[in-house]
Amino acid sequence: MKIAKPLSDLIESFEKLPGIGPKTAERLTFYMLRIPQSEIQFFADSLTNLKKMTKVCELCKNVSESNPCSICTDEKRDISKILVVEEPFDILVFEKTGKYNGLYHVLHGAINPLDNIGPDELYIEDLIKRAKAVNGHTVKEVIIATNPTMEGDATAMYIDGKLKSIVTPDKLLVTRLGMGIPTGADLGYADDMTLNQALLGRREL
Amino acid sequence: MKIAKPLSDLIESFEKLPGIGPKTAERLTFYMLRIPQSEIQFFADSLTNLKKMTKVCELCKNVSESNPCSICTDEKRDISKILVVEEPFDILVFEKTGKYNGLYHVLHGAINPLDNIGPDELYIEDLIKRAKAVNGHTVKEVIIATNPTMEGDATAMYIDGKLKSIVTPDKLLVTRLGMGIPTGADLGYADDMTLNQALLGRREL
Repeated sequence: MKIAKPLSDLIESFEKLPGIGPKTAERLTFYMLRIPQSEIQFFADSLTNLKKMTKVCELCKNVSESNPCSICTDEKRDISKILVVEEPFDILVFEKTGKYNGLYHVLHGAINPLDNIGPDELYIEDLIKRAKAVNGHTVKEVIIATNPTMEGDATAMYIDGKLKSIVTPDKLLVTRLGMGIPTGADLGYADDMTLNQALLGRREL
Repeated sequence: MKIAKPLSDLIESFEKLPGIGPKTAERLTFYMLRIPQSEIQFFADSLTNLKKMTKVCELCKNVSESNPCSICTDEKRDISKILVVEEPFDILVFEKTGKYNGLYHVLHGAINPLDNIGPDELYIEDLIKRAKAVNGHTVKEVIIATNPTMEGDATAMYIDGKLKSIVTPDKLLVTRLGMGIPTGADLGYADDMTLNQALLGRREL
């Protein structure tokens, strides 16, 4: 039996999404058949508009409706701090905690020689420029929050080297997110690398 | 931080899909940002066309591009058998096995008093009409393949009663899918109901 083309087209699109296999793609497609056309149209329009209606902020490279983005133009934020992340999604993660009030910088990836992604493919040069001067003010701290992976580590080290080579009026502090045991984890299941990082990062009580 | 509306709209749509929670919806949305606009547009168009370009077959109530559908008009199929399923998706499941060559009938649900779905909300009356005569031929067997749930069982019993009350030239055989241990399963993990069904459905070797 051939699946009707309108169905197979949608199955194909769902299947391309990460974490969605052929079976789930079929299920989702047949599920959509039972949804009112207005809701399906809203979904379709959201997809069409996703990239058309968003811009990349010229300062922090975040995806936003305005340029510069709402974070970069927010006068309540501490412009002496820049937190560096790999993806726009990571900003959302930090914003949800409500514990960070500085600015961000999105690299849009991490250094990955296997995928031909070098420093020039990322917004690293823009970060260095920002570290030199933000609206005439001096950046005091750059917090590197790349993922704790091979690629994220390499990127963090590369950025650290670049930042330390620039001359700033005050000393520029370059930090990286603390690493160790996550809250609620079971020590017995922690891997060697994490335990090692937790020991290295131990703090006086 | 407010998420840009084009992003939050898409997150909202993804979140409505079964099995996709808020976190996954966010991930998928940010993932879409990295996909070429042409692919996004294909996804959006597939959604828009899904219901516009498909019809419900007047005979078997399957979702199809043509009416009657490609299965009902296929002359190679055995028109003396009708397999009754709850959803169009179930047809796909049987067609993939390649072991069934008869016709289908989609009920578009199962009897569920809690959700106010009675026999009249389903395509049961149409099934009874089809059982009486298909293109002048006599239907010899109706295989009920509703899900092995409370609702599916009730639907099967209701249809069985209805079918047995109609007068056909030859005796109409009404069967239900065999129930028991699925292939590859571990007996130790089988539940009481399934084991009971397996015992009741035991066969001579």
